[in-house]
Amino acid sequence: MTFPVVGMVGGGQLARMTHEAGIPLGIRFKLLSDTPQDSAAQVVGDVVVGDYRDLDTLREFARGCDVITFDHEHVPTEHLRALEADGIPVRPGPDALVHAQDKGVMRAKLDAIGVPCPRHRMVTDPQDVAAFAAEGEGFPVVLKTVRGGYDGKGVWVVDSVEEAAEPFKAGVPVLAEEKVDFVRELAANVVRSPHGQAVAYPVVESRQVNGVCDTVIAPAPDLDEALALKAEEMALNIAKELGVVGHLAVELFQTRDGRILVNELAMRPHNSGHWSMDGAITSQFANHVRAVLDLPLGDPRPRAKWTVMVNVLGGDYPDMYSAYLHCMARDPQLKIHMYGKDVKPGRKVGHVNTYGDDLDDVLERARHAAGYLRGTITE
Amino acid sequence: MTFPVVGMVGGGQLARMTHEAGIPLGIRFKLLSDTPQDSAAQVVGDVVVGDYRDLDTLREFARGCDVITFDHEHVPTEHLRALEADGIPVRPGPDALVHAQDKGVMRAKLDAIGVPCPRHRMVTDPQDVAAFAAEGEGFPVVLKTVRGGYDGKGVWVVDSVEEAAEPFKAGVPVLAEEKVDFVRELAANVVRSPHGQAVAYPVVESRQVNGVCDTVIAPAPDLDEALALKAEEMALNIAKELGVVGHLAVELFQTRDGRILVNELAMRPHNSGHWSMDGAITSQFANHVRAVLDLPLGDPRPRAKWTVMVNVLGGDYPDMYSAYLHCMARDPQLKIHMYGKDVKPGRKVGHVNTYGDDLDDVLERARHAAGYLRGTITE
Repeated sequence: MTFPVVGMVGGGQLARMTHEAGIPLGIRFKLLSDTPQDSAAQVVGDVVVGDYRDLDTLREFARGCDVITFDHEHVPTEHLRALEADGIPVRPGPDALVHAQDKGVMRAKLDAIGVPCPRHRMVTDPQDVAAFAAEGEGFPVVLKTVRGGYDGKGVWVVDSVEEAAEPFKAGVPVLAEEKVDFVRELAANVVRSPHGQAVAYPVVESRQVNGVCDTVIAPAPDLDEALALKAEEMALNIAKELGVVGHLAVELFQTRDGRILVNELAMRPHNSGHWSMDGAITSQFANHVRAVLDLPLGDPRPRAKWTVMVNVLGGDYPDMYSAYLHCMARDPQLKIHMYGKDVKPGRKVGHVNTYGDDLDDVLERARHAAGYLRGTITE
Repeated sequence: MTFPVVGMVGGGQLARMTHEAGIPLGIRFKLLSDTPQDSAAQVVGDVVVGDYRDLDTLREFARGCDVITFDHEHVPTEHLRALEADGIPVRPGPDALVHAQDKGVMRAKLDAIGVPCPRHRMVTDPQDVAAFAAEGEGFPVVLKTVRGGYDGKGVWVVDSVEEAAEPFKAGVPVLAEEKVDFVRELAANVVRSPHGQAVAYPVVESRQVNGVCDTVIAPAPDLDEALALKAEEMALNIAKELGVVGHLAVELFQTRDGRILVNELAMRPHNSGHWSMDGAITSQFANHVRAVLDLPLGDPRPRAKWTVMVNVLGGDYPDMYSAYLHCMARDPQLKIHMYGKDVKPGRKVGHVNTYGDDLDDVLERARHAAGYLRGTITE
């Protein structure tokens, strides 16, 4: 059979779950992983251990792959261009991926295509931050290094010119943004294929705790239908204008005055789409694989009235197995997704999905399981 | 973390799909496979290539496994006993598994516990077959070698004493059974754990073509509720009385006069349970893993009104990829499961699942996709 080989750069849980979704599709999977112990490296057959920052390693890895895709956005743009020059399809390609790698490039592009964002501009030093504050509503101001941040890292909320010194210490360009008065965060997840087919998942509500995604509710409760449609269209438009291939997550603020503003973009399967593994007809991971191979996309619609995802973070106790057993006994419908990672406090080591007709019940079951696994709930 | 290692003997598609189900559970999987190209060996990280008939190979493989389970029923009983003597849990254990390995032992045990079976007895030669026929309704008679048969192999339907010679040529004991006047075949799938928890999947209808499973409909249409309950209870009772751990498939004949008779037993995930991957809250593969680890079992109930599974058999054309692409484009809700196997005419190389509210539609979609992949439907 001529079933293709997908080369996945990065051995984290997104790669692990993409492999899981690729198995029934009959897709062969090859992994470039930092270590043999990485989350995905534990479960994939064809693993190359190496450094994605080294072009020779990437080139050697790409040999025999029909397409290259990613579990993270950290591969240097020039390496991606080199692979493309070698004739290896890279999806998403470097021209799209740079918008998820560099927040400055992303904001400039979204401005150019008329997508609403928080007020923002690049800033050069703390005094410039004060000037940015004075141009709008004053402090607090959000500062972000344009590259390298994730899960709250590389982001500061500063209340004064003195506090604004820290972000500049890394020597990376800094973007200033207004602190949006939002009522909640939403995410619009879409998948786009090279021939331009695209699907939109229902818009979800995403609740963060300390800058880390904690709970996702699909679909977002009480979301005005017109606003939901607007968010889906916005995400599909961004995917098209940026030339995204594969999964695109558009993180959004819903403001008190009824607008939606783009917070962040991610060009890979995303935490806000994990609910789809058990809650949608086709999961984000299956559709990502289908998209990077230019296969027809699967139906993204929900299978349940409500699906809730809660992340399982590491707690103080390193062994979750007995808690895991308890959670299975308590709720035979619970869907647990463990990543095979060592437990460290605050580290994402898994997630749980629940679904059903009663949102309160679905939320309680997911929260209880995640809390019990973490050790913050003991009964 | 102390998440356990499941050792799977056999590298076929059942092992492949069990690994897929084990990934979200965080279970580490170790595979003993005949070749590195086997269906499961392509997708599992930790693969030992070796011969399961060799005790030293099995012992070496079992080192570091917390439990051993199987993708097939061919491991010699004495080897399983040796592993148990080494302190390795074998699930299902040899005392249970022998009932799926030896049809003579199986019939004797089912007789002893009062489970209805087709009229049967061991036969010694063609004249004895004629005597067996004369004891009942005459020819035709079904003859089965007690060991080594599957998918119609090792089974003969004979019309005369002359035709009855063939099955005795292998030198394996032969079981004679009445040819049951059945209206259809059913299957009752149950899963049982070492501490005795058990779950029953809805009874399904299984349609065979040339002795090979072709279509499964879950639940079995128009099945009398009392008969369905009786079949589930029978399967749960067999699992208990035989000491099964893991998945047990009980293949049944539904007779014209409204009885159910046991045809075959399989102690592993089974073709008649593949629908559960997309149609049940917990798949047979996930529940098999949970059972062999003595974890609490997941909910076996259906997620859709109707789920249909149709096997994809190899056709004349070795490359299914373009047909696969066509099927995805035609039906975005289709669930394709490919096994990574080379196409050979008549070989099971995958299956498709469809689900929905309208049985005719669900059946048509699954049949079309499987037929298109095989090449028997070209439009």
